[in-house]
Amino acid sequence: MATRAVTPRPLPRIIMLGLVPVASWFIVRPFLDPVPALPGLFISIGFSIFSLLATLYLVPALGPTFIQAHLSGRDLLKVYSTPIPESLGLVCASVYILALILFIPFAFSDSLTIRSTPTPEGISVPEFPHSRLSVYLSSLLSLLMATILGFLDDVFDIRWRHKLPIPIVASIPLLMVYFAERGNTHIVVPLPLRFLLGSLVNLGPLYYLYMSLLSTFATNSINILAGINGSEVSQALIIAISVILNDLLYLPWPVGFHLPVHLLGSKAEVEFGGVWSAGMAHGSKELVERHLFSLYFMLPLVAVCAGFMYHNWYPARAFPGDTLCYVTGMAFAVVGIQAHFSKTLLLFFLPQIFNFVLSCPQLFGLVPCPRHRVPRFDMDTNLLHPSKAQFMKPPASLTVIVLRIFSTLKLVDLTVHPSSGVILETTNLTILNFLLILMCCQVRNEFFLSCSAGLTIILGKQIGGSILAFTVRYGLAGLVYDR
Amino acid sequence: MATRAVTPRPLPRIIMLGLVPVASWFIVRPFLDPVPALPGLFISIGFSIFSLLATLYLVPALGPTFIQAHLSGRDLLKVYSTPIPESLGLVCASVYILALILFIPFAFSDSLTIRSTPTPEGISVPEFPHSRLSVYLSSLLSLLMATILGFLDDVFDIRWRHKLPIPIVASIPLLMVYFAERGNTHIVVPLPLRFLLGSLVNLGPLYYLYMSLLSTFATNSINILAGINGSEVSQALIIAISVILNDLLYLPWPVGFHLPVHLLGSKAEVEFGGVWSAGMAHGSKELVERHLFSLYFMLPLVAVCAGFMYHNWYPARAFPGDTLCYVTGMAFAVVGIQAHFSKTLLLFFLPQIFNFVLSCPQLFGLVPCPRHRVPRFDMDTNLLHPSKAQFMKPPASLTVIVLRIFSTLKLVDLTVHPSSGVILETTNLTILNFLLILMCCQVRNEFFLSCSAGLTIILGKQIGGSILAFTVRYGLAGLVYDR
Repeated sequence: MATRAVTPRPLPRIIMLGLVPVASWFIVRPFLDPVPALPGLFISIGFSIFSLLATLYLVPALGPTFIQAHLSGRDLLKVYSTPIPESLGLVCASVYILALILFIPFAFSDSLTIRSTPTPEGISVPEFPHSRLSVYLSSLLSLLMATILGFLDDVFDIRWRHKLPIPIVASIPLLMVYFAERGNTHIVVPLPLRFLLGSLVNLGPLYYLYMSLLSTFATNSINILAGINGSEVSQALIIAISVILNDLLYLPWPVGFHLPVHLLGSKAEVEFGGVWSAGMAHGSKELVERHLFSLYFMLPLVAVCAGFMYHNWYPARAFPGDTLCYVTGMAFAVVGIQAHFSKTLLLFFLPQIFNFVLSCPQLFGLVPCPRHRVPRFDMDTNLLHPSKAQFMKPPASLTVIVLRIFSTLKLVDLTVHPSSGVILETTNLTILNFLLILMCCQVRNEFFLSCSAGLTIILGKQIGGSILAFTVRYGLAGLVYDR
Repeated sequence: MATRAVTPRPLPRIIMLGLVPVASWFIVRPFLDPVPALPGLFISIGFSIFSLLATLYLVPALGPTFIQAHLSGRDLLKVYSTPIPESLGLVCASVYILALILFIPFAFSDSLTIRSTPTPEGISVPEFPHSRLSVYLSSLLSLLMATILGFLDDVFDIRWRHKLPIPIVASIPLLMVYFAERGNTHIVVPLPLRFLLGSLVNLGPLYYLYMSLLSTFATNSINILAGINGSEVSQALIIAISVILNDLLYLPWPVGFHLPVHLLGSKAEVEFGGVWSAGMAHGSKELVERHLFSLYFMLPLVAVCAGFMYHNWYPARAFPGDTLCYVTGMAFAVVGIQAHFSKTLLLFFLPQIFNFVLSCPQLFGLVPCPRHRVPRFDMDTNLLHPSKAQFMKPPASLTVIVLRIFSTLKLVDLTVHPSSGVILETTNLTILNFLLILMCCQVRNEFFLSCSAGLTIILGKQIGGSILAFTVRYGLAGLVYDR
């Protein structure tokens, strides 16, 4: 069993070779007549497939090099203890950013737009104006800074309090260019508050604070929910796919259909597709451009995450390190900010927000916080148990109140002194432990989950969160916003 | 003596504290009336002074962290063998790039240009148009990629043949944006060839090849001339200062004077300064903008190089690692390409070009090439000697011819079998060894140079090279180019 962990997962050769012509077709297609409506999107898909292949191939190929450079970890949840290469998120980040850089001439040069004749009906999207190039480049700069800072974190093992400002530093290029380009700092006021504030409010400098906090949140909220093989990358993957699904609603499609969201209380239908209306964009070129921008960043991200997940899946052959969390978090912040759908983005982070709120008592010192809060692995039974934090002395009254409330809501499992009723232990306040408690209570009153199942929970809760997010965004949002 | 190497060089506190108000004044000055003609330049100088202070402070402060992360080296030329932190070029690069990023809103926003009233006489330079922002950002991307690749080289110790393409990869953002912006690929033909090619030739794709080769050359030529404390950083420093001096010739100055270059054979005088003529720019806004761009990149580079040199000076308290060579080389390539003076830039690389040509027989396998070609240090006498390469078997006839020619030109010192005349040894073919041979022959016929003096030679030859470069550029160039 000890050797199994270090043997790279075999690559399905036929699939890999088969994908090369598919990817090539996507890249060549826009140069052939008739030119498709969105030539850049074809090329982006082509590059994404190549990124997937590169990640699949490079992660196992570079693993030994990382181990040699002292970048390896031991799996906290495994019975064997052979070193597994750590920080391979760097490979994902490099492939991702290189794909985005090589994409520049296709997205921004005239070579494609000159060829694409205006479509006979519907809005024609002449890809990006050159002014958007600096926005694209500043996003790349932020991603690259997140990569280098994440990797430095892996190499130097930066302390927690020095870590927090890292995403803020990485978001500086974004903010600088946003400022230099005199970016919009107005926000739309929700309907119930309009009598007080009007329909638009200029946040000014506060908007820059909001943007840097968004990148901090997106980065750290993924990082905080780590500890099970594949947990970081699967969160990123599901969020990225959710963003892509949301973007697709705004593109001009040759077909169209309606989603019956009036059932959820929305006044307007969700119109999906139709060249004239460009789906939810309602004919707005600006909106189509923004969501194309988002797609260009999300498609290769999904590709590298999927490629890495293949090797990071239980039992993991490679660990992501902090680099992956930083880069994916920054990528989400970038599209949320630059494509102006940060509120929708935050909805996709619902599980992370829940985890953050749940963690607050431990983060702010009410409850003791051990170094690792990941679920505990029982070697004998091969099962996962919620990990626990012990109270060395009887907890303060505020802590008791909070924990009692959490316990009533079935968020934590408390160990109480049989006679005095003093709280001795609590399960660590993370969404993973919460889900373990939830599952065992509802199903067999016993911790039955294997590690692999643990990952399935994460995937499940993230997908569930995204479904909820779509419901809120296109159903309930109609109650507080115009559309 | 063993402890001396690891004790950081003390910082002159009074000077450091004294520089803070100076730097602050430079940053605040453009916001006060009367607004100076080039407000961005003031702010760039202010940021550069802060970069100098940051580098001076951070290099010794972060040294122990680098040693902990297995990033330390032993000095090949020192008697003591305590570990000295390696790769601290990363700190320089980070400070440098952060300064350039924070400079963005000052260089590109309207906040400054709105305030600056047109000057009563002379060309007014409304700083940069927004279209130049993407050029600036692509340069930053290339610098950041050079940083991350250089640091990866330090961490993973990449093999030589994998190293060569690194600068090409780092220059991709530059090339992509150059292409997307439909950058100029024409070159001016020298006068003697015009009857054949016309006055302009479009190189097309060859121009992109030229640009990527320029970055490869600028990077590796500094890296190849390493091995003495301070050699990498001092080369970069002198070249950067030379570029700055060259840029200053093109700025609008309130005073003006002429250099009598007709003595060197040039038809036109070098006019320095004068608001109307903007010095060598002859009233061309375009030229002033280009050289401002170059100054914005070179001023902070000089600052971080000077700050690092303080700690890298013999005996070195910190080593630069490959990161510094990559970043400085890429910075030179960036300004050469974006500000369109790559030919002038190459003139400043004359010592490096000489070193490269001299090294060719070893690089291409005619002469054996040991792992290190740095001059040998004699512990007993504390003197430097030229290092030697030994022939295991009698050299081929081509090698003999080349070495005999080099020997006649006093470029190498050969050890010949007394009776048979077969070449047994040659000094390694580097400019450092060549200078050691030259000095000893001319001065006392004995190797008398201490390590510190060795560095002085490098500085001297680089400064001499730059003086020669200026002579060629503004004297002899008039013979083959219009101006």
